[in-house]
Amino acid sequence: MSLTTVSLEPPYLLYLGDVADDDHAKTGFGLAYWRPEHCAGQMRLPDCPVDLDLTEMNVADAVEAGVRTAIVSVAPVGGQIPDHWLPQLIEIARSGINIASGMHSKLRSMPDLVAAAYKGGATLTDVRVPPDNLPVGQGKLRPGKRVLTIGTDCAVGKKYSALALHRELERRNIKATFRATGQTGIMIAGEGIPIDAVVADFISGAAEVLSPANDEDHWDVIEGQGSLLNPSYSGVTLGLLHGSQPDAIVLCHDAARTATLEVHGDYPIPELDEVIDDALRFARRTRPACFCAGVSVNTAALGDVERDTYLGRLQDHLGIPCVDPLETGMTPIANFMLKHAS
Amino acid sequence: MSLTTVSLEPPYLLYLGDVADDDHAKTGFGLAYWRPEHCAGQMRLPDCPVDLDLTEMNVADAVEAGVRTAIVSVAPVGGQIPDHWLPQLIEIARSGINIASGMHSKLRSMPDLVAAAYKGGATLTDVRVPPDNLPVGQGKLRPGKRVLTIGTDCAVGKKYSALALHRELERRNIKATFRATGQTGIMIAGEGIPIDAVVADFISGAAEVLSPANDEDHWDVIEGQGSLLNPSYSGVTLGLLHGSQPDAIVLCHDAARTATLEVHGDYPIPELDEVIDDALRFARRTRPACFCAGVSVNTAALGDVERDTYLGRLQDHLGIPCVDPLETGMTPIANFMLKHAS
Repeated sequence: MSLTTVSLEPPYLLYLGDVADDDHAKTGFGLAYWRPEHCAGQMRLPDCPVDLDLTEMNVADAVEAGVRTAIVSVAPVGGQIPDHWLPQLIEIARSGINIASGMHSKLRSMPDLVAAAYKGGATLTDVRVPPDNLPVGQGKLRPGKRVLTIGTDCAVGKKYSALALHRELERRNIKATFRATGQTGIMIAGEGIPIDAVVADFISGAAEVLSPANDEDHWDVIEGQGSLLNPSYSGVTLGLLHGSQPDAIVLCHDAARTATLEVHGDYPIPELDEVIDDALRFARRTRPACFCAGVSVNTAALGDVERDTYLGRLQDHLGIPCVDPLETGMTPIANFMLKHAS
Repeated sequence: MSLTTVSLEPPYLLYLGDVADDDHAKTGFGLAYWRPEHCAGQMRLPDCPVDLDLTEMNVADAVEAGVRTAIVSVAPVGGQIPDHWLPQLIEIARSGINIASGMHSKLRSMPDLVAAAYKGGATLTDVRVPPDNLPVGQGKLRPGKRVLTIGTDCAVGKKYSALALHRELERRNIKATFRATGQTGIMIAGEGIPIDAVVADFISGAAEVLSPANDEDHWDVIEGQGSLLNPSYSGVTLGLLHGSQPDAIVLCHDAARTATLEVHGDYPIPELDEVIDDALRFARRTRPACFCAGVSVNTAALGDVERDTYLGRLQDHLGIPCVDPLETGMTPIANFMLKHAS
């Protein structure tokens, strides 16, 4: 069973349309942060409030700069490309620059865009296409170590935390593979399975395929999706949790988040120990020894002093390492995880 | 947003191929039990061990009996139609009898079958096709009462229990709608959403569409799918639970089941009070007042005396009505549910 593999030719132009806010431009921020060497510029509609801090380009600039692939760098709810972005995308394709997208709506299903790409000699790559013939989850215990990032919500840093933990393991020459489950992760890693695009019956089966049996000392670092607490995506999260059979989970949280994003109603984030207990309760159905290796917090909303106080208090309360993956680093979580995984 | 609607012309021929056991012929047993007036006969391959106790027919018999639709009446893991069933299905289609199937593999994707149906003037209906353009779950509280059957596992009676509860509410002239989430339920009800065939990101959104806002005194009786405890399908179950926002859940169980079916590993069924607590904990994320209205047990494996003892002890322990939906009936659960739903 093969993964969804993507081969995107750099340099990239990150296309933002008029995406409403940073939370919905996760793909752009992820690529700019984790693959800066590939990102030549950004392109936006007038009034787009999001800025990736890359060189602003129009199509002529991009051609001039040798851009090979424009990446639709947003992840709005529902994953549809708005009609009013099409004229710019058509112009890009007609100029011969390839386009890649991780949206649910497919580039190849847009006749005008397909025609423009044909004319310009550009390719259209839809990243959010799961492999064919995924199996139903088997639940069979398999060798190899696995760690899964889980979240108190969507967009709290599950991908960043997994990538940072993977980088930390590689730095120590520990055998490790980052396992991407979303469009941005797949674009960064070059392969993975877009777990939220899989037919519901096959979620845990897809997770089993994504993190197969491996050497006992090899770590799969699996990018989490959604949250057990977010009623929009909780099914994806539980299927991924059960299929991943993680030895360890890392809870990801945004210090500024008090309630679930995007839903209409009263969905506060519970105390973190409660979140961890619930996740472990379910995780242990398929991996009885699963433990929580730490909490990875996006503290961008806090100052340096506030951050230290926040993380220190949390760590005292929970008794496991609490870090900001970008500001304080994943070393304590990696230490704890490697020490406690038998 | 419309549901998946099916219009299957009776009388039916229930096609079983050589399905391995009763558990995988749920569609056949369900149709024979809930729509006996439409079922003219059954057709099987030699050595098929499953018997629906209907008139045995070959294609000539079925034509003679005026059969209008042959229904692929099995639900194997993964939902694929085996190649060696094709010759009989082709013969059926060539004779002009329509074919319907609820499998993941689509009748219309089988060229030889499509050709035979064209020649015979028969239609091919794939029931397990979700509506297009389902939304992501919103989590918004909506009026109307909803009850969802949940299970300790797959194939423990969630559909039968929901249909029996719906029949009990109708008998009392209470406004109620059975909401089908699987192929058999959809064939019985004529509409529904095959929730396990929805793309993972849209599970709870599909559940919201399936049981929309309604009169405050109207009950949607929602057919459950899978189980939070079955690692193959738990994602479907949690998405359906969160999207349904049930006022009440009814736990379904098979008295003979001690471990999860179909998985490879050690997956015992926990104590039922633990199962209920976990389900309510998650259900209350979207419907804070959710309660468990009772336990509906398939006691087919027990004798009459054993059944009474089993249900009596369970009821004493849990303090909620415990019934066999077919043997002792849903009256106590309906009473409890209507009394406690405010």
